[in-house]
Amino acid sequence: MDFLVRIKNQAPPTLVGEELENLVRAESARAKELAAKGILLRLWRIAGQKVNVGIWRANDATELHSALASLPFFPYLEIEVFPLAQHPNDPKAEL
Amino acid sequence: MDFLVRIKNQAPPTLVGEELENLVRAESARAKELAAKGILLRLWRIAGQKVNVGIWRANDATELHSALASLPFFPYLEIEVFPLAQHPNDPKAEL
Amino acid sequence: MDFLVRIKNQAPPTLVGEELENLVRAESARAKELAAKGILLRLWRIAGQKVNVGIWRANDATELHSALASLPFFPYLEIEVFPLAQHPNDPKAEL
Amino acid sequence: MDFLVRIKNQAPPTLVGEELENLVRAESARAKELAAKGILLRLWRIAGQKVNVGIWRANDATELHSALASLPFFPYLEIEVFPLAQHPNDPKAEL
Amino acid sequence: MDFLVRIKNQAPPTLVGEELENLVRAESARAKELAAKGILLRLWRIAGQKVNVGIWRANDATELHSALASLPFFPYLEIEVFPLAQHPNDPKAEL
Amino acid sequence: MDFLVRIKNQAPPTLVGEELENLVRAESARAKELAAKGILLRLWRIAGQKVNVGIWRANDATELHSALASLPFFPYLEIEVFPLAQHPNDPKAEL
Amino acid sequence: MDFLVRIKNQAPPTLVGEELENLVRAESARAKELAAKGILLRLWRIAGQKVNVGIWRANDATELHSALASLPFFPYLEIEVFPLAQHPNDPKAEL
Amino acid sequence: MDFLVRIKNQAPPTLVGEELENLVRAESARAKELAAKGILLRLWRIAGQKVNVGIWRANDATELHSALASLPFFPYLEIEVFPLAQHPNDPKAEL
Amino acid sequence: MDFLVRIKNQAPPTLVGEELENLVRAESARAKELAAKGILLRLWRIAGQKVNVGIWRANDATELHSALASLPFFPYLEIEVFPLAQHPNDPKAEL
Amino acid sequence: MDFLVRIKNQAPPTLVGEELENLVRAESARAKELAAKGILLRLWRIAGQKVNVGIWRANDATELHSALASLPFFPYLEIEVFPLAQHPNDPKAEL
Repeated sequence: MDFLVRIKNQAPPTLVGEELENLVRAESARAKELAAKGILLRLWRIAGQKVNVGIWRANDATELHSALASLPFFPYLEIEVFPLAQHPNDPKAEL
Repeated sequence: MDFLVRIKNQAPPTLVGEELENLVRAESARAKELAAKGILLRLWRIAGQKVNVGIWRANDATELHSALASLPFFPYLEIEVFPLAQHPNDPKAEL
Repeated sequence: MDFLVRIKNQAPPTLVGEELENLVRAESARAKELAAKGILLRLWRIAGQKVNVGIWRANDATELHSALASLPFFPYLEIEVFPLAQHPNDPKAEL
Repeated sequence: MDFLVRIKNQAPPTLVGEELENLVRAESARAKELAAKGILLRLWRIAGQKVNVGIWRANDATELHSALASLPFFPYLEIEVFPLAQHPNDPKAEL
Repeated sequence: MDFLVRIKNQAPPTLVGEELENLVRAESARAKELAAKGILLRLWRIAGQKVNVGIWRANDATELHSALASLPFFPYLEIEVFPLAQHPNDPKAEL
Repeated sequence: MDFLVRIKNQAPPTLVGEELENLVRAESARAKELAAKGILLRLWRIAGQKVNVGIWRANDATELHSALASLPFFPYLEIEVFPLAQHPNDPKAEL
Repeated sequence: MDFLVRIKNQAPPTLVGEELENLVRAESARAKELAAKGILLRLWRIAGQKVNVGIWRANDATELHSALASLPFFPYLEIEVFPLAQHPNDPKAEL
Repeated sequence: MDFLVRIKNQAPPTLVGEELENLVRAESARAKELAAKGILLRLWRIAGQKVNVGIWRANDATELHSALASLPFFPYLEIEVFPLAQHPNDPKAEL
Repeated sequence: MDFLVRIKNQAPPTLVGEELENLVRAESARAKELAAKGILLRLWRIAGQKVNVGIWRANDATELHSALASLPFFPYLEIEVFPLAQHPNDPKAEL
Repeated sequence: MDFLVRIKNQAPPTLVGEELENLVRAESARAKELAAKGILLRLWRIAGQKVNVGIWRANDATELHSALASLPFFPYLEIEVFPLAQHPNDPKAEL
């Protein structure tokens, strides 16, 4: 089952330097793992904002929550999840 | 350039019968044309809502607006457009 | 997978008499069918409001959307869906 | 009388380590006690969010408030309470 | 148990003349009955608005909902219910 | 003239121990004085929230503001004031 | 006692011609009467909006509500009332 | 040109003692200067809130912004500016 | 003085055919006149929405309001006006 | 492609002195560079607010995001981006 997930990063501006770089690196590594597992499919940035939107796939909400809660930035994230149903007009084009 | 587009259909409950069926058929045909042109790429329904979200591709905002305004349901639509920037952690998986 | 579903009925005050009674009867019948299928589990009314909240169970968002869209009142409903994940402190008491 | 209770945990990301673990353990123990008293009936997590929703039972608002205020995380919680009335279409299925 | 109830009357400006007068008269009569039953205790108007706030007393949310739904204006009302708990600093003065 | 006053206490969770106890004691003492002066008439807690609602009486907005600003917790309070007008259906029951 | 009153006129665009002109004329006449009584003191238009803000003076909320409810446009008005307290830095300049 | 200006003071509760008194004194002195220049005309407090509303006069938005930014509390202020147009029903009474 | 003006067109979907075409033509003609007078400087459409944003120039709020209220679509417009002050980093590039 | 960009500066009031001056100077220098590259075209301040609005030009959302993220104040900025489409009534006047 697919979900549209909107993630707003609310890490404070005081999070800088090595601490920030470590988190960014860990986040990137975790994203790769989630992609390899077929959970994280696509990820875009909303221009100008500390916000990303993505397409996530999980068997149920518990599995999805585990994936999201495993993100190193999770304590700083404000997340909204929208369950996606099929639309009859979906072209299913390759993005 | 890609856009996340959220479309809420606010057609009134009094729109029914043949008038509604004609609009739905025309909308479906127009979606096919926009897909064939490579403008409408993906379309999902938000479960339970008269809302769809999609990935749209256009050269600029004027072209995108023309595509959206060409939808037969356009007079009833409340639309939000989010310009999508690349995200370094995007797996670019096939959906 | 379980969902918390909040349904606000926005049928206009001009919907009265036999038309309203027929809809209410059909809604009740459809709710019974969805309960028999194990899709609609619980339903409460928020005191004072034209709002109900319920626990719904479906394999995925497409199945859930079909169930919700099959409600006779659907054209008048404003629906929000919250995917439920397990909580470690859930007593799982019988309600 | 039953209540739908939505609890958003706004503990800051700086609450970590032993202090956090102690609070989580104390919260879990208190939830068990409230469940044993028949006050806390069900608890789910909203996927992706620091939010849970639950069904709570109390004789009145004063008793409910006491229960909620006894949660170790209470100083960090933003809580909404919705009094639940019976709905004629409730299947009363076992969850 | 006591509730603070906020009622916004959204009857349309086209509701006028005898139809309106009949509703107002019926509302007043029903309010008297609910007062006689000890359900409606106090009622004030928010200055300038089509809004009243009141103190209502009921055994539970189902009884409260029945009382509110019995108001002749109910189809036009947007209602919010706040369950009231005792406050240690309440002077309990006569109003 | 009477006012419905809604007070949200936004004191931070870091306000604890003796400092908090002193404030709570001072708040209670000040509430008693305002009650004795006939300014604070009733006070309830909204279940689950750090919010109280009350009925306050003052000659004008300046006197009301002085009373509210004299609360020891005032620096932490987010306050809304609703001027109350008489309602023709008010039962004026004793609460 | 003085109040800042914000009035949004939500008369529908279908209210036109003689019916509108009569209402505008009656509103203007009523405003003059309220000004003569010392209730309506000042009135401005918020640029671009169907909104006015004004300074009103009344003994209490009941008197203020009567004045506002006597406006011929009242069925179409969405009104907010803010009780004004004296400010120590008020220059009390003539406007 | 006149403006309705709504100023919410969001100075934190930790701003106390001499630092606060100095700011309050400086704010009062600056308000007097702006009044003497004919820029600040009237100022009221919204009862119960850390909010004031005022009537300000300036040649244009740049001059108005300079005046507002010169307030010693400016770093803590959340300000909204509403350009005021003449209203045909304005009594222009002395306030 | 310059203003950023955001105009949302809320004309109903039932406004169609010749009546709509006449309004669109009249709006275009009026826009040309306001441009010729140096009041309307620039106008863009927000992609996907029935919203435009523009830069308008007027001596004061009364003149601006007159210009906006002279638009043939005015009864259907929801307008927000933001007074623009000079910014020290403005490149003043030709658009 | 042009964008309307609204930037709210949420730097805390504790950011003062040399640290603030350095940031302001760096921001001004970066704005000049972005103007020289033809990315930042116009910039205005919303009167009274820590908000600016501007017209920005970029090939796509990724380039726009890079420009915005390069602002020295970026960690403190809350940014909204509105893609601008051509409007048939745009006078294209020089600002």
